This record gives sequence, C-alpha cells and structure tokens, in this order.
Amino acid sequence: MNALRHTLSLASLSTFQLLRRSKGQHIRGFLLGTGLGLTTFSVVTYADAAAAEDHAKVKQTLDTSRFMAEPITDCKALLADKDNMRHRMELLILEIQAEVCRALEAEENCGQRFEVDRWERAEGGGGITCVLQDGDVFEKAGVNISVVTGWLPPAAVEQMRARGKKLNSGKKLPFYASGVSAVIHPRNPHVPTIHFNYRYFEVETAKGEKQWWFGGGTDLTPYYLCEKDANHFHQTLKSACDEHDATYYPRFKKWCDDYFRIKHRNESRGIGGIFFDDVDTPNQESAFKFVSSCAKAVIPSYMPLVRKNKNREYGSNERQWQLLRRGRYVEFNLIYDRGTKFGLYTPGARYESILMSLPLHARWEYMHEPKSKSEESKLLKVLRNPKEWV
Amino acid sequence: MNALRHTLSLASLSTFQLLRRSKGQHIRGFLLGTGLGLTTFSVVTYADAAAAEDHAKVKQTLDTSRFMAEPITDCKALLADKDNMRHRMELLILEIQAEVCRALEAEENCGQRFEVDRWERAEGGGGITCVLQDGDVFEKAGVNISVVTGWLPPAAVEQMRARGKKLNSGKKLPFYASGVSAVIHPRNPHVPTIHFNYRYFEVETAKGEKQWWFGGGTDLTPYYLCEKDANHFHQTLKSACDEHDATYYPRFKKWCDDYFRIKHRNESRGIGGIFFDDVDTPNQESAFKFVSSCAKAVIPSYMPLVRKNKNREYGSNERQWQLLRRGRYVEFNLIYDRGTKFGLYTPGARYESILMSLPLHARWEYMHEPKSKSEESKLLKVLRNPKEWV
Repeated sequence: MNALRHTLSLASLSTFQLLRRSKGQHIRGFLLGTGLGLTTFSVVTYADAAAAEDHAKVKQTLDTSRFMAEPITDCKALLADKDNMRHRMELLILEIQAEVCRALEAEENCGQRFEVDRWERAEGGGGITCVLQDGDVFEKAGVNISVVTGWLPPAAVEQMRARGKKLNSGKKLPFYASGVSAVIHPRNPHVPTIHFNYRYFEVETAKGEKQWWFGGGTDLTPYYLCEKDANHFHQTLKSACDEHDATYYPRFKKWCDDYFRIKHRNESRGIGGIFFDDVDTPNQESAFKFVSSCAKAVIPSYMPLVRKNKNREYGSNERQWQLLRRGRYVEFNLIYDRGTKFGLYTPGARYESILMSLPLHARWEYMHEPKSKSEESKLLKVLRNPKEWV
Repeated sequence: MNALRHTLSLASLSTFQLLRRSKGQHIRGFLLGTGLGLTTFSVVTYADAAAAEDHAKVKQTLDTSRFMAEPITDCKALLADKDNMRHRMELLILEIQAEVCRALEAEENCGQRFEVDRWERAEGGGGITCVLQDGDVFEKAGVNISVVTGWLPPAAVEQMRARGKKLNSGKKLPFYASGVSAVIHPRNPHVPTIHFNYRYFEVETAKGEKQWWFGGGTDLTPYYLCEKDANHFHQTLKSACDEHDATYYPRFKKWCDDYFRIKHRNESRGIGGIFFDDVDTPNQESAFKFVSSCAKAVIPSYMPLVRKNKNREYGSNERQWQLLRRGRYVEFNLIYDRGTKFGLYTPGARYESILMSLPLHARWEYMHEPKSKSEESKLLKVLRNPKEWV
C-alpha cells in the first residue's frame, strides 16, 4: 500500500488523468514522472500488485473518480478518521476543484481540457495543480489545491503574532495548511476574471496546544462594468455569508476592498467580493460550514456571467484595455499579494503553482489614461472609489 | 527668475520639447501642465517676461539645448558652483540621457521620437522621464533621470546601516540622490534588452557629517544568445572599468550575476554586465570619473548589437519566446528589484517613471520548457549557470 501511495504521490497526473478517463481502469505499473525538470518531483515505479488491489478497494469506498486526481492524504486515513477537520477540508477542496474545473471545461466550445499535475513537497504534503491554457473561452485558468505540513520559521510566527495570534516568539512551530485557490482569465474582455481561495490552517504552540483558523475569499475583476453582473456576483456572495452571520458580508466586503488595492496607483484590482482571515468563531463546525457555503457559491456567482458574455463581440480596443488591466493584475499579485510573496520566498516552493495566477498576456503602456466618459473610464472610476453593490 | 523656474519645473515637457525643436525659440508664457491627472503635477502660468530674458542668458552659457529638457536644478546655481558634485552629477546624467535618447531615435526607421515629461516632486527635486513607445525598432524604451532631496525614514536608514553605513539609528536623515536609469525593450527578438542605472547619493548624519557614494551598473537581457555580441558587451564594460581599477570588472561582474537572479526560478534575468553600490574610494573625483566612464560605455556596448540585429527575420515562435522572457523580466522587477520596491513603497512616488521599465507586452505560460538543444534552451542554460564572457 505504501509503495502505491508513494507512486501516486509522485507520478505525473497528466498520465494519471488519462488513465482515469479511459473507462475507469485501475492504475498500473507504467506511470511516469512529469519529466518537466521540477527538482521536487521524482519517479517511483510500481512494484506491488497486491497493494494495487488493496488501494482499488479503498478507492471504491471513497469514489475518488469525482476528483481531478487522487487525494494528497492516503485514502485509508481519510476514511478512517472522517471527523478530523484536516480530512474534511481536504475532501471539500478536492470536490470544489473538480466542480469548478468541470464547469469551466463545459463552457469550452472546442473541448479544451485542464492539464492536471499532482505534486509532492519534500517537506511534507503536496497538491494538485490544474491549468487550462489557450482555450477558446478561457485564455488561462488555474485551479490549485494544496495540503501541506511543515515548520513555520520564526519570521512567519512573528507575522502571525503581529496579527494577534498567541504564539511563542523566536521558535519555529509545526503547521498544517490546506486550501483551494483559483484564477480564471477568460479571453473575451466582456467576461470578468475571477479569483477565489479558501484555506484551513493549524499551528501548534510551543506548549503543544493547537490553534486553527479559516481564511479565504472570492473577488471579481471585470474589464468592462456591467452593473447587473456586479450585483449578481455580490448578491450571491452575500447570500452565502448571510446564512451564517449577518455581519460577515459587510465586514468581509470591506476587507476585500482594502486588501485588493494597488496602492501605488490608488486603485483597486477589481470590484471586490469578500475576503477574510483568522475565522475561528463561533466554533470549528460553524466556521467550516461558512467556508463550505462560500466555496460552493463560486460557480453560481460566476458561471452565469461567463455564459451571458462569452460570445459577445469585441475588437482590438477592448482587447488592448483588457491586456492593460491584466498588467495591473500582475502588479498586484507580484507586489502586494501576501500568498504570492509568502509562497515565492519559501525555499523549495512550487513556483509554477503559485504563478499560475498570472495571465497568459499582459501589457504596460506609459501614462495610459482612458478617454473621459468612455466605458473604460467608467470602470476606472469604480476601481478608484469602491462602491456598495447590494 | 523664480517664477520661471517654477514654471519650467511644472510644465509639460512634451510641449517644451516641441518648442525647443522649433528653431531654438525661447520658452514663452503659454506652457501648460501635462493634464494627465498626476497629483504631484500642477500648472503655474508664466508671469514675468524679464525673468524669461534673464533665464535665456543663463541658458546660452550652459547650452541646455543639448538636454532633453531643462535641468532640475536652477541653471544659475549649476553654473555658479561647478565643482559641487551634485551639479557635476546632474550635468552628467542630463548628457547621458540626451545621448542615449538621440542614439535610439536615430535607429528608428519611421521617425518615432521620445515623449518627454519633466516632473517635480512635492518633497524636493524632480526628474525628466523620456519614453519612446511602439516604435518600429524599439517596442518600449524609457530613459529617466531624477534629482531628489528629502528625508530618509528610519527604516531606510536601518537598511543602510545593515549595508555597513555608519549612520545613527532611529532618526530620519536628510538625503540627496540623483541618477539616470534606462530600460530599452526592442521589438526584434534578436536584439537584447538593456538596462542601466548610474546614481550618486548623499546622506547627512545626525552630527551633520556628509556621507556620499556612487552606485550603478549596466546589464544585458538577450532572448537569443550570440556569443560574439555577449563578448563585445562585456568587453566594452570591462575596458571602462579597467581604466580605473583592474579589480572592478571581476568584482562588479559577479555582483551583477548575484543581483539579477530570479531566485524562485533559480535563473538569471539575463547575461549580466556590471553592478555596484557604495563606491566611495579612492576619492570622490576618481569615483565620479569611474561612473562617468561606465555611463559613457553604454552606447558603444549596445548600439552595435542593435544595428547588427534589428533587421533580422523572425517568426511567431521567436516572438512568443521573447514575450515569455519579458514575463520573467517583470517578475524580477516587481518581486526583487530594490529600486522598484523602494520606489513604489515611497508615498507620492511617480510610479509611471518607476514602472516605465516594464515591457509593452509580456506572457506567462504554465510549465513552459524549451525543447532540448533548441536556441531557447541554449540561452536558458547560460541563464541558469552564469559564465565568464571575457
């Protein structure tokens, strides 16, 4: 069993996905590494046929065929301790990843599919990165999950203390983090870009006490403003929040506006949504249900906008404006985004998964300013002064 | 005189340049602000005809028509104290800016010219930003000078202390900085991108003692490797260094390789050049002459490469590869470059001048890896393992 798990963790899931899709065949001993030069990847050949049978049984019980790839955690362990929040979160993000990928693939007219890379981290854990590139509807879409364990360096502990966490200073502490994170860049400038991320975090204090919290959010970056679409998007998120706490949407909407600010330009990346961190009340069960509701609101908040706008006509002007705004997106992600910075400064980080958020194309023009009263300037006005949508 | 100086500092130098070029007419009272919505800009109308005459006389003595715009410092002051290193540096960077802009304009086949913006900083000083965009030879070229004074915040003082500067901790200190900085992105993938920056810095200690130093460098980012061009580029820089100190080139070449490293990808931005900071030996005169030699080596190191390669044929593959490498350029500049980070985190910074270094277009592909033995992989090999060129 261990040999198999090892194989699954390290194998190329491009190959793996192909196998899963061909009439549900079980995995055999010919899995290969990605061969893409990633130093954290390696190849392990399949050795134990009995272990494969054993694994197949567990798979049937869990039905991992719904997912884009095998879970990061051993299926047996996931099933044996179903109440463990780590396992519940892993199953949630596996499900969300698969639902979003399939919903996006369904919009592609020429059948473009997600490429799936399942990867392992030397320090502990791993992830599944799904990227659809050069589709006819989606120019670049990345949907990533990761489940990692390791040690937080003292500097990271210090940052958390600054945010109010009661942790001992000057020590590295064991942590666990899992989450789903996605950025969808459509080709048509009338379809907005969406980003979402939902995550669960555990850290152990020097005394061995466990602290946990949830974070996340969903936000929209349109290139042209359609008030009705913006209302629909915010209303869907608000409804997901309101089920749990009436104060959540207004608080997390403002947090989102504050967070996704391109400070040097004094404008927002997009029209916001919700953003939160350190959610650990009223209890773990309720907090998990809240995060589940938000994650499940992604598809109903966004897909209607895709379907409605993906076939609209546009010309070179609209495309150039979209590329300029994508340049701003890159500025935010590389200069301000905490996740990107934290990720890239972590030794051994899988930078391809972190940077999948960057658009296929971006443009920077010196001193660009849209014509007054144009559709472009209408958007810019809202980016400069975030408004209430619902 | 003051009224004029004020007008010049705040006026649109697009207009100004146009006037200078029309038969050497002197500046009159109809200069207008840029009207581009920059909050640090404002418009002052011309009030004093006598002051204009006065200014015209000073101008004749200094011959500011060589420059892209009027100096930042009052011409009279520049002339009155010619030995002041601040003034010598300002005149050097004005000259380098104009020489580089004219050399680049001369390569354009359809007559594309630099747009000139002269700007003022509320906290003290200002700059001249020259950008040529969408030329037939140069896709985007920015050549910027700035001459600024102000107060270094304690955090910046702390950074300098960490670099070995003997400065008092916890206090803000008065500083002066001037420099020229340029990034040239050509259209043809066979012509490399070049970046250079030469600067002079003064800071006053709490006891009123003045510390000064020079910094700078020139580095090349080819998209396809031509060993002969790389040798020529490095040899030209080496000769400029060797005139002054035989240890400079090897030391500053290595510093350059270390600095322009995209750490998360474990590759260099380009094939290096020279990079140095804190040069304050053997004395101010020699250090200035060294920096002058380096700055004057820019054109002979680069322009032969432009002329040789600008008309070479290329196709979509070469263009796509160029755009991918430009994505890496953006990553370096926004994530690691000290100047960009320092600039963008400074309140009231002129971000358009800082971000002029970004290419007109960039591209990010998930998991891109060039074919083995291709021209692209040949470049990548050198970027991963910097080599000695001369």
